[in-house]
Amino acid sequence: MTTMQTSPKVSSELVRNAAGRMVPTEVNGRPQTPFLGVGAYEPDGDKAAPPIRRCADYPTNGDKRVADLRTALEKCGLRDGMVISNHHHLRNGDRVALEVLKAADSLGVKDLMWFPSAAFPCQAEVIDLMEKRVVHHIEGSMNGPLGDYCSQGKMRGMGVLRSHGGRWQAIQDGEVQIDIAIIAAPTADAFGNCNGSHGPTACGSLGFALADSMYAKHVIVVTDNLVPFPCLPWQIQGNNVDYVVEVDSIGDPSQIVSGTTEITKSPDRLLIADYVAQFVRDAGILRDGFSFQAGAGGVALAFVGKIRQIMEETGVKASFVRGGSTKQLVQLLQDGYTSAILDGQTFDLDAVRSIASDPRHVPTSPFTSYNYHGKGNFASMVDVVVLGATEVDRNFNANVNTHSDGRLLHGIGGWQNCLFAGCTILAVPSFRDRLPVIVDEVTTYTGPGELIDVIATERGLAINPRRQDLLDAVKGSDLPIRPIEEIQAEVEQLCGGKPERPRLSDEPVAVIKWVDGTVIDTVWKVES
Amino acid sequence: MTTMQTSPKVSSELVRNAAGRMVPTEVNGRPQTPFLGVGAYEPDGDKAAPPIRRCADYPTNGDKRVADLRTALEKCGLRDGMVISNHHHLRNGDRVALEVLKAADSLGVKDLMWFPSAAFPCQAEVIDLMEKRVVHHIEGSMNGPLGDYCSQGKMRGMGVLRSHGGRWQAIQDGEVQIDIAIIAAPTADAFGNCNGSHGPTACGSLGFALADSMYAKHVIVVTDNLVPFPCLPWQIQGNNVDYVVEVDSIGDPSQIVSGTTEITKSPDRLLIADYVAQFVRDAGILRDGFSFQAGAGGVALAFVGKIRQIMEETGVKASFVRGGSTKQLVQLLQDGYTSAILDGQTFDLDAVRSIASDPRHVPTSPFTSYNYHGKGNFASMVDVVVLGATEVDRNFNANVNTHSDGRLLHGIGGWQNCLFAGCTILAVPSFRDRLPVIVDEVTTYTGPGELIDVIATERGLAINPRRQDLLDAVKGSDLPIRPIEEIQAEVEQLCGGKPERPRLSDEPVAVIKWVDGTVIDTVWKVES
Repeated sequence: MTTMQTSPKVSSELVRNAAGRMVPTEVNGRPQTPFLGVGAYEPDGDKAAPPIRRCADYPTNGDKRVADLRTALEKCGLRDGMVISNHHHLRNGDRVALEVLKAADSLGVKDLMWFPSAAFPCQAEVIDLMEKRVVHHIEGSMNGPLGDYCSQGKMRGMGVLRSHGGRWQAIQDGEVQIDIAIIAAPTADAFGNCNGSHGPTACGSLGFALADSMYAKHVIVVTDNLVPFPCLPWQIQGNNVDYVVEVDSIGDPSQIVSGTTEITKSPDRLLIADYVAQFVRDAGILRDGFSFQAGAGGVALAFVGKIRQIMEETGVKASFVRGGSTKQLVQLLQDGYTSAILDGQTFDLDAVRSIASDPRHVPTSPFTSYNYHGKGNFASMVDVVVLGATEVDRNFNANVNTHSDGRLLHGIGGWQNCLFAGCTILAVPSFRDRLPVIVDEVTTYTGPGELIDVIATERGLAINPRRQDLLDAVKGSDLPIRPIEEIQAEVEQLCGGKPERPRLSDEPVAVIKWVDGTVIDTVWKVES
Repeated sequence: MTTMQTSPKVSSELVRNAAGRMVPTEVNGRPQTPFLGVGAYEPDGDKAAPPIRRCADYPTNGDKRVADLRTALEKCGLRDGMVISNHHHLRNGDRVALEVLKAADSLGVKDLMWFPSAAFPCQAEVIDLMEKRVVHHIEGSMNGPLGDYCSQGKMRGMGVLRSHGGRWQAIQDGEVQIDIAIIAAPTADAFGNCNGSHGPTACGSLGFALADSMYAKHVIVVTDNLVPFPCLPWQIQGNNVDYVVEVDSIGDPSQIVSGTTEITKSPDRLLIADYVAQFVRDAGILRDGFSFQAGAGGVALAFVGKIRQIMEETGVKASFVRGGSTKQLVQLLQDGYTSAILDGQTFDLDAVRSIASDPRHVPTSPFTSYNYHGKGNFASMVDVVVLGATEVDRNFNANVNTHSDGRLLHGIGGWQNCLFAGCTILAVPSFRDRLPVIVDEVTTYTGPGELIDVIATERGLAINPRRQDLLDAVKGSDLPIRPIEEIQAEVEQLCGGKPERPRLSDEPVAVIKWVDGTVIDTVWKVES
């Protein structure tokens, strides 16, 4: 590892990690391990754990309600510099996280670290709270305006982006100690048992909040649908909860789940979905008892439709499919094409209804699905996963966080964790806005090419040369299997050359964590 | 606290605790806190936690099977002095625990601490393994022969008896660090996900094994019903499991659950059940949304029948009932007399079928129900609980562990934890084998009288004078409410005087833990 002096903003030095990226050795006052390679880092020590509590300090009748958020925060001993966590199941409809931070502001505290599982545009006002020094910085996926703010170097601390599994790992391993966790609960009882599957603002699973509820020093449940004890099912256990706050509304249902999830209509993207489904068949991955994961993007949904068609034709059935769940997956379950949906998040109303009523539609958590510092997880047991990316490079490395202009606009989600599937396919258009997606070197290195097996574009599929088995498997196929360099060259010709490199400063504004907590890349301040 | 010198067996001194009992200050090499009074002990520090693991060390395809128990134990690094845990859901039909300890013997290890949630007569052969020095001592409920062996002072270490909640507390607080946990699973997949609700040896809930799976350094799942991933529901998560072992049979179904649970036919006991049900009605406890817990004993079952009758007459419905679940509780659920069964263990086949199929019949764990070092638990939210005892005294203190001859023959179960219910009723015959059950001073002090509200016998009900509210509530009732001393005197006259005091040595052989981990009493070696 070579080292260099860092900018004035970051006091630590930078080192070159195993991915060849310069990363800081200290972030927000905590020492960091640079990425050492896939599977190379060996953690030691014991998991973190919250303080021991005792029933004598909680109401005997189980009624933990307090008047409002402000009271709950006061009772939790809110003070300067604390770590406040939220989860993002209410997506862009969330009305809780911002209220919590505003309540903290009204109590006069400063320098909080906000630790959402993801932030959405509806929380853009957190920028004002950062300007007012109420929030010091954000560690969490920052979609849209907050990411942009971070990109401009305006946050006082560094952004830290983690995958869903990496967030569990960081909490579990004690890298992040949550002082106060806020659980926005579509249904809850006064003891704090709660779920996301029922109620007027139902969002399905509450899995991203599970670690927060287990490891935080203090836990507040906020609900707009209080039911008599016992709230069933209890996705979050009241035994981990300190206070319950009733509010009129935790979110805008129309922004929490979509009424329906839409399959892409773009002919190019439908073609990609076709290619991917055909690849899964021709490579021999589609066989009885196979499993797959595809998200809720347009291409992924089209892929599910195509793979269903092949399953119908061949009579092959899946043992399980992984959500993000949608109507398409629910129909597979109901029609007998899969035995189970193992669901990380629930994207549309059909999926919410299914998870609330069908025991084969199971809410999962990043612990079961993604945590790399566990005794295995579900991600590596999935036969094939179809993901996206903002950029891929000739070594199959990929970027999902920054745009080609270097701006940090997306979180990692479960993307890094899913790379451990039996076969990882990135389904990407070959260009966007006349910019080639296949580049010489990704702007941000979110995932190592050694875990990425296929790049599927509308101009053909590139198979990673490391996967000779896949290359062999599709030898007789009529799929347009092509070297990645060939697709790249073709697209560059079409778009008028290689994309311009982004204008980046040498000032780190955020780091990208790998699934094991090591630092895989740095996000640099964008020159304005 | 006064102190005295202890016997040669125990190196520590004895002190008088807040219950007035002499207890050792050190047990099995660990310092102890004497009982300080209900709610008086304030724990500090953080919960315990197991070592951080990583996926790189576990099979990518999720298949954790190994050839046999011996192999699994070797892979877990079994060595002298380790702590091996088992759970008791297979009750007297268990075929796993003994096999594990025998496999350990075959590997030549010595001085194990065996930590079952409870031991049954089918495990009496552990006595041989203690004689062979394979097992050093047992911490856990010892029903029957193992308790007797302990009573005779033959165990090399001290017995430590904990309630179900106390066992969770001890694991959670790090008092007991389990090296290898064994989960006997009626259904499991190769990843280690498992449940007790399905399969030929189904036992219902696996709640007692949950703490073991979460906190142990190594976890082995043993099953006779391997199913394809994912095993649903996963009461125990494979993400906590290291190895899976397939065996022909984990237990004898006829001894695991009874085909049917029998209501008592004894007229005296039926009368007690009548009194208790009438008390619950007359004291105003029976009202819409009330809750109760009663076990699977003959009187408890008769009580459930009586209370159902009153519910039918009055139209009152329960919000929840707590199991140990039986056909009687299942019928309440199915007939709409309760909204939910919150189930700690599943006693008969009807209950097993119900927990496997009805989402309102919920498996619980000692964490949700009983752990005193949590943010509340279910036990204190139960309006009325009907329990038994081997002895009660004039101060309402009670004994469930030893017989009047001083022999340790029973575990604590959830008994101590249940004392926190709104109203605790001990339903006991006034004498057994011509020995009065109400004594001047209990042989073993398992639970403080301040938490025991009513002693119900066939000769009348004694209400604890601390509960003036209950005394007032039943003023107009035709129930035979009597001072405890009066019942005691009547029974002594009948039985020919007070029972003889047991002949006990001054040698401690076991301690009884209170729900907070403090030592509430000592069990003394029985003079033979």
